[in-house]
Formats: sequence, C-alpha cells, structure tokens
Amino acid sequence: MRILGIDPGSQIMGWAVIESVDNSYRHVYSGVINSKTIPDVPQRLWFIYKEVTAIIDTYKPESAAIETVFFSKNQKSSFVLVQTATSAMLAALNKGLSVHEYQPMVIKKALAGYGRAEKDQVQFMVKRLLNIKESLLLDRSDAMAVAICHINSAQFKNRLLQDAASY
Amino acid sequence: MRILGIDPGSQIMGWAVIESVDNSYRHVYSGVINSKTIPDVPQRLWFIYKEVTAIIDTYKPESAAIETVFFSKNQKSSFVLVQTATSAMLAALNKGLSVHEYQPMVIKKALAGYGRAEKDQVQFMVKRLLNIKESLLLDRSDAMAVAICHINSAQFKNRLLQDAASY
Repeated sequence: MRILGIDPGSQIMGWAVIESVDNSYRHVYSGVINSKTIPDVPQRLWFIYKEVTAIIDTYKPESAAIETVFFSKNQKSSFVLVQTATSAMLAALNKGLSVHEYQPMVIKKALAGYGRAEKDQVQFMVKRLLNIKESLLLDRSDAMAVAICHINSAQFKNRLLQDAASY
Repeated sequence: MRILGIDPGSQIMGWAVIESVDNSYRHVYSGVINSKTIPDVPQRLWFIYKEVTAIIDTYKPESAAIETVFFSKNQKSSFVLVQTATSAMLAALNKGLSVHEYQPMVIKKALAGYGRAEKDQVQFMVKRLLNIKESLLLDRSDAMAVAICHINSAQFKNRLLQDAASY
C-alpha cells in the first residue's frame, strides 16, 4: 500500500509518500510545496494542483490522506488554508486516488497514543517508525503522520474484514 | 468573447455562459449545480469539478468569471462555500481557461451602477441586457451578472489598449 500524506498549510504544504511493507513503513519521498510568493489566488491554487499532480505522477500512490482543516482566528489565512487543501484534494481525485480526511486528534492518537500529544511527540514517533535520523520540518513529518494514520486505519479495517470472513 | 460566469454557493452554484456580440450580450445557456445531497466532502467537491468540466466541454467558453467569496457568520457554510468555489475555479483552470474574480460590489456597480444595489435590481438589469422574459433563480441571474461584469471590464481594458496604441 502506497499513500500520499498531505499536511495542508496556507503558505507551506507538507507532503510525504509512505509505503507499508508487511508490518512496517517505508519513507519513499517527501517535501513541501511553498506557494506563499504567488499573490494571485487562482494562480496559487493552480500551482498547488499542478505540484500535487506531478508528485502523484512520479510516485504513483494509490490513495491520499489529508489532515482535516479548521478555521482559526485569522480569517485570511483560514480562507487560504481551505483553498489550498481543496486544491490538493482535487488534484488527487483527478488522478483517480481515493481521498481520506483525518482530524488532527485522530492522527495524534494513531501516532502518539494520545489525541492531545504535542507536535514534537508526533514527530518523534514518525521518525522512529520510518527510521529517519535527520532533522525534519514539522510540515513534512505531519504529512508522514497522516499517511501512517491512514495505513493503520486501512490495515485495521482489512483485519476486521478478514476476521469476519473466517467465521 | 464567450464567458462562463459562476455564482458560488455552499449548496447551489449558479452558472451561465454569456457571449458578447458586437456591443450586445447573448445568453447561451445557464443552470445550477446542486450538491447539497452529497455529504462526503471529497465526493462533493469532485462532483462540482466534474460538472463544471462538462459545462466547459459543452459550451467552450474562453474565460471564467467568479464572484469572490467571503466568510459569513455561519462557519460551516462558509467553509463549504470556499471549497465549492475553489473546485469550480480549478476545473476552469484545468481546462485552460483564464479565471477572474470579481467582488460583489464591483458586479453590482457594473450592472446597476451602484455597489450597494439590491439583488432584484441586479436581476432586473441582467434580464433586460439578455432579453430574458421568464422568471429566474437568483443563483442563475447572479452567474449571468458576473459574466457580463467580466465582459464589460475586458472590453474596457481592450479599449484602453487600443487608445494607447493609437498615439
């Protein structure tokens, strides 16, 4: 199973392609999409759409997992956040991927066992699971986290289905 | 010049294809995209994206004009509004159209001569300009209004360029 994880941001969007091999995870590639220098809204959304499309063409994930976005106090950046997350989702849908949303608390619980875990606790677990030694931007490790969260959740669902079938 | 006008809405999105012929306007086709019965967010956005794509494939406009969306007091519907407007914009960009945003006050001023005009004043002018007799949903007439606003603005820009070139 090869998953594209996306951590939406109004300026910087993290992304990571993660594979599950047997019962472990492999980091295929990851990066950030930085759109903050593009002031025109349609051009900015189009840039993100094209970048996500290129990532999918290159790494061929079968599904995408994205962190659910919420409104913050800053209306302007909330607005851009919803727009950029929507652009990433549509690029994935347009390439035929299934798209799954996960709330921040669900991702934290899946990684650190606790829905209110700190960001660095989540990053610590992500790096351990993927055997990454170097320092990582939180945008990248958060994208890895949502991909791992989806793999866990999908494997859990499959196991339930297999258990049900064995009766 | 053939323009796709879009009036974004969280549940109902109006659209209209308008042509400018010499100094008049022609209503080519218009309708609404109703996505309120699709609860799953990615599927809803994908539905709008595919509908807008189909409209462009059928009526072949060269540009799209869309009313700028703003946050209202209702956070949930504001959220969906930004998502649906983004989906329509990306569908147009993906088909190679240029996409232009117009603020509600600019559209009202272009149609009714006054930025705080009422919705029915705008609809009255739209119907007169397009010679439409039958009753229209506001979602449809608002989509026609943004398309006409763009045609006016584009013709104005062209005239300025021609004037400048004649010196």
